[in-house]
Amino acid sequence: MVLGKVIGMVWSTRKDESLVGSKFLIVRELNLDYTPTNKTVVTVDSVGAGVGEVVLVAQGSSARQTTITKNKPIDAVIMAIVDKLDISVKQKVEDLVEN
Amino acid sequence: MVLGKVIGMVWSTRKDESLVGSKFLIVRELNLDYTPTNKTVVTVDSVGAGVGEVVLVAQGSSARQTTITKNKPIDAVIMAIVDKLDISVKQKVEDLVEN
Amino acid sequence: MVLGKVIGMVWSTRKDESLVGSKFLIVRELNLDYTPTNKTVVTVDSVGAGVGEVVLVAQGSSARQTTITKNKPIDAVIMAIVDKLDISVKQKVEDLVEN
Amino acid sequence: MVLGKVIGMVWSTRKDESLVGSKFLIVRELNLDYTPTNKTVVTVDSVGAGVGEVVLVAQGSSARQTTITKNKPIDAVIMAIVDKLDISVKQKVEDLVEN
Amino acid sequence: MVLGKVIGMVWSTRKDESLVGSKFLIVRELNLDYTPTNKTVVTVDSVGAGVGEVVLVAQGSSARQTTITKNKPIDAVIMAIVDKLDISVKQKVEDLVEN
Repeated sequence: MVLGKVIGMVWSTRKDESLVGSKFLIVRELNLDYTPTNKTVVTVDSVGAGVGEVVLVAQGSSARQTTITKNKPIDAVIMAIVDKLDISVKQKVEDLVEN
Repeated sequence: MVLGKVIGMVWSTRKDESLVGSKFLIVRELNLDYTPTNKTVVTVDSVGAGVGEVVLVAQGSSARQTTITKNKPIDAVIMAIVDKLDISVKQKVEDLVEN
Repeated sequence: MVLGKVIGMVWSTRKDESLVGSKFLIVRELNLDYTPTNKTVVTVDSVGAGVGEVVLVAQGSSARQTTITKNKPIDAVIMAIVDKLDISVKQKVEDLVEN
Repeated sequence: MVLGKVIGMVWSTRKDESLVGSKFLIVRELNLDYTPTNKTVVTVDSVGAGVGEVVLVAQGSSARQTTITKNKPIDAVIMAIVDKLDISVKQKVEDLVEN
Repeated sequence: MVLGKVIGMVWSTRKDESLVGSKFLIVRELNLDYTPTNKTVVTVDSVGAGVGEVVLVAQGSSARQTTITKNKPIDAVIMAIVDKLDISVKQKVEDLVEN
């Protein structure tokens, strides 16, 4: 999964009939320190995420493994809202030494 | 899904028999401000999109989850025509601060 | 799908038993003006394509949705031979303006 | 599969109901000499890996082929803990000659 | 599929139970002139490939379409050993002209 932040929505009235009622959220991928990357992905939300929230996005066929995305032409789903990240201090120190 | 704009068509008479009648549309991927990227993808259209329209494209096995692409050797489908994007103002301000 | 040109073959006698009789074609991906990119992919052909022909390649699980690739360890298939591309003139003008 | 090292965890209380009880581990991808790359992926663990361990990660639909990830919206799984890599000496010499 | 060369092995005793007995081979991706790229992938072998051999690797769900990888959390399989590549002379000349 990738870490991202919900930054907006896509409005669409003409869409595949299986997608009527689906809400498309725009997610910007984040680095582990929450700084934004230049990658964005349009997703469907399965957990009630709102704009500004940090989330996890699953992609590919795995995006169809939720009740609301099953059998739909959807390749990215928000399947978790992130409370916090816990990065190993040891790892952080190693990163400093290497950089 | 990725955001893109339909910019043309691919003509093909010799193709897999399951694809007879399928129309291949060329989509250029777009940034969130609608500027073009250098990435293009050839798609099948499930929603009646035309050249110049802004669309969403689903890829991989998810591209086969529409009535007209089911069980076909198709890895990209246009599954929605975009009316507009709604990007959070707060997010835009943060982007300005960061850049 | 991606646009490409058949540039050669891979010879292999020791291969998965389901692939006996399969012919592996090397495809170089093309830009929309037919100039070559630096990306290549090894494919199986489902439409009788030959060296020098411009084709479409479907990848991932979609590559297994043809009679000759079904249930085989194949992740790229040639599923159409391209007659011509039709790129919107309006789009070309916009590209010039932007670049 | 990709080689990586577990560097932390993602805490999430609001997630798809199928994921209750799943633990999300952050994996940094590694080069073959164990130096870190700048790519990270959020995974679910199927083998009891802990922070600091070197692991293999399977992605896409293959990530759902374990007892604990089956039918869940998960696109990356830790499916092996690495004891050691064995790189051919001949290959190393060739790399030196080429670089 | 991608072209690669087997350069080593990954040793792992703690792995998903379905993988007991599976051998993980490290493959470096190659250019068409057999020079190495900087990309590597960890694979399972279905054809008896050894270190130093040039092979084809199928990825994604297609990697599970062999007897020994079926239903396993494996996203890359060696499904052919390469005897030789046959690149069109015409294509080579065109490449020279373009570069």
